[in-house]
Amino acid sequence: MSPDVLQVENNDLTDLYTHDTVSTTYVEADGVRFAYRRFGRTGKTPVVFIQHFRGTMDNHDPAITDPLADDREIILFDNRGVGATNGIARETVDDMAHDTALFIDALGLSTVDLLGHSMGGEVVQMLALQRPELVRRLILVGTGPRGGEGMATLKPSTAELFVKQYERQDEMWLAIMFAPSETSDAAGRAYLERIRRRPDRDGPVTAEAALAHGTAARVWGRPNTEGYADLRRIAQSALVVNGSDDIVIPTVNSFILQQHIPNAKLVLYPDSNHGAHYQFHEDFVAQAKLFLDRPAPGP
Amino acid sequence: MSPDVLQVENNDLTDLYTHDTVSTTYVEADGVRFAYRRFGRTGKTPVVFIQHFRGTMDNHDPAITDPLADDREIILFDNRGVGATNGIARETVDDMAHDTALFIDALGLSTVDLLGHSMGGEVVQMLALQRPELVRRLILVGTGPRGGEGMATLKPSTAELFVKQYERQDEMWLAIMFAPSETSDAAGRAYLERIRRRPDRDGPVTAEAALAHGTAARVWGRPNTEGYADLRRIAQSALVVNGSDDIVIPTVNSFILQQHIPNAKLVLYPDSNHGAHYQFHEDFVAQAKLFLDRPAPGP
Repeated sequence: MSPDVLQVENNDLTDLYTHDTVSTTYVEADGVRFAYRRFGRTGKTPVVFIQHFRGTMDNHDPAITDPLADDREIILFDNRGVGATNGIARETVDDMAHDTALFIDALGLSTVDLLGHSMGGEVVQMLALQRPELVRRLILVGTGPRGGEGMATLKPSTAELFVKQYERQDEMWLAIMFAPSETSDAAGRAYLERIRRRPDRDGPVTAEAALAHGTAARVWGRPNTEGYADLRRIAQSALVVNGSDDIVIPTVNSFILQQHIPNAKLVLYPDSNHGAHYQFHEDFVAQAKLFLDRPAPGP
Repeated sequence: MSPDVLQVENNDLTDLYTHDTVSTTYVEADGVRFAYRRFGRTGKTPVVFIQHFRGTMDNHDPAITDPLADDREIILFDNRGVGATNGIARETVDDMAHDTALFIDALGLSTVDLLGHSMGGEVVQMLALQRPELVRRLILVGTGPRGGEGMATLKPSTAELFVKQYERQDEMWLAIMFAPSETSDAAGRAYLERIRRRPDRDGPVTAEAALAHGTAARVWGRPNTEGYADLRRIAQSALVVNGSDDIVIPTVNSFILQQHIPNAKLVLYPDSNHGAHYQFHEDFVAQAKLFLDRPAPGP
C-alpha cells in the first residue's frame, strides 16, 4: 500500500506525516472537489486553517503547523476556485464561509477549531456566526471586523505590493507580511525558505480568483452603520493575534476585535506586520497551545 | 540560627522560602529604611515588583510570585512612606522611580527585571528612562503612558471606589480590580483569600501617602503636549498586559504603550478589569516566563 492509501484508511496514522510529507487528498461537496492535507496526532479537536487573499495551502508555515500537529490534527485546504480546488472563487466572505462549512461537513467532522489569517480570519468570524455548533474556538490572525477601520480599501502603497512582479513571485510576501526592519525581513526570508521546501506545491492563485476575493474583501471592509454588533454574537473563545503595524488590515482592528468579541484575548507582537505569527512562530505556537488547551470557561 | 539569619547570610537559601513564609528584611538608603521580601531560586535576573496606588507588599499575588520564584528571585518592597518603609511618600512618579533605584542599588544589584502594576507601571517606565543600564526587561500591567487617554482624573464612579468603606477594607479591590461578572468576581474573591494568608501583613497605606501618590498620579495623567516621545526612548523589551475594560487606567492606554515602545508585546484578557493578571494568574505566569526567558533580540 502506498502511504496515501494508508492515510485514507486509518486516521490514526496521520501522525506519521508532516506538513511537507502528507499527501494532498480530495473530498467532494456541492460539485466541488476540495483539495486538503490532514496530518497530526488524533484525539483533540482538529484545527482547520483558513488562508489569506492570494494564498494557497502552501502559504501556511510548517514552523506553526508541525509543532501544533504534535498533539492535534491540522487540516489545510484550498477553498473553492483556489489552488488545487476546482470551481469558481466566491465574491463574498459569507459564501467563502459557507464553502468552508461544506468542506468541514464533507470530512464528517462535527466540531473544529479554526485558525484564519487576514481574509481567512474574516471567513472564520462569519463561519462562527453561521454555524456556531461547528466551531469550538477561533484564532484570528492579522484580521479585522466587518467594516473595520481603514478596511474599505488598501492604502495605495499596500495595493501596489499585491501586483508587483518578482523574479520569484513569493517574495511579494516579504513587504506585505513583514516589517521594514532587518530582523523582520530576516524572519520573512526564513519563512519563504520554509514554505519552499515542499516539492509538490500548488500553482499560484489565478487572476480570476484574486479578482473575486478582492471584491469579497472590499465588500467586507465597507464601513458599516451597525457598529460591531456581529462580534458581540460570537460566543466562542477567540485568540486575536497581530503585528504592531499591519499594513494590510490596520492593527487597531485587532484591538477592536478583542474589545467586542465577549471572550477574546489579544496578543500583539513588536517590530512586525501582517505576518507576525510567521515571524514569532515559536511564541505563536506557545500562545495557540495555551489558548486551545485551556479548560472551557466555567458555566 | 533563625531562618532570617540564614537568609541574610546566604542568598542560595532564598529558595527555601515562599511568598508567605519569607521574612520581611530591611535595607537603608538615603535615610530611608526600605522594607522588602526576597525569595526564589538564584541565577536568573531578579524581578522587582512595583506596587499600585494604595497597595503594599501584601497586595502582590502569591499565585504569581511563587510560580515565578521557581526559577528566579522575586523582590517585593514598600516604597518610601508606604507600609513597613518609613519616610514621607513622594508626590511625583519621577521621585518614586528615583527611590526605587536607590532601593535596588542598596541591594547591590546591577541588573533587574521590573514588574509594575498601575502607578507601579508608571514608575517602571520612568525608571527605565532614568537608569536604562539597571533595567533588563519591563512588565507593565494595567498601566498607561504619561498623559495617556482618560488618565488626568479618575471617572467619578471609579474615584468613589477608592474611598468606599468596607467591613474588611481589602474588599475595595473587588470592584477596582475585577469586572462586574460572576467569573471575574469569583476570581477576585479567590485573590483576596490568597493575599490574606500571610500572618504578618503590613498595615494599610496611610491617608498621607495616599494623598501624595494621588497627586503623583494626577500629574502623570495630565494630557501632555509632546505626544509619547518618552516611550520611543525605552530601548528594553516590554510586556504590556491588561484586562479588557480597565476602569482605573483605560485599556486603550495599554494599546498605546505597545504601539509606541519600540519592542513591546501586548496581551489583553477578556472579561476583566485593572487586575486581569490576578484573574488569569496561570496564563499571566506563562506569559511572564515566555517573555522573561526568551533570548535577547539579535544585534
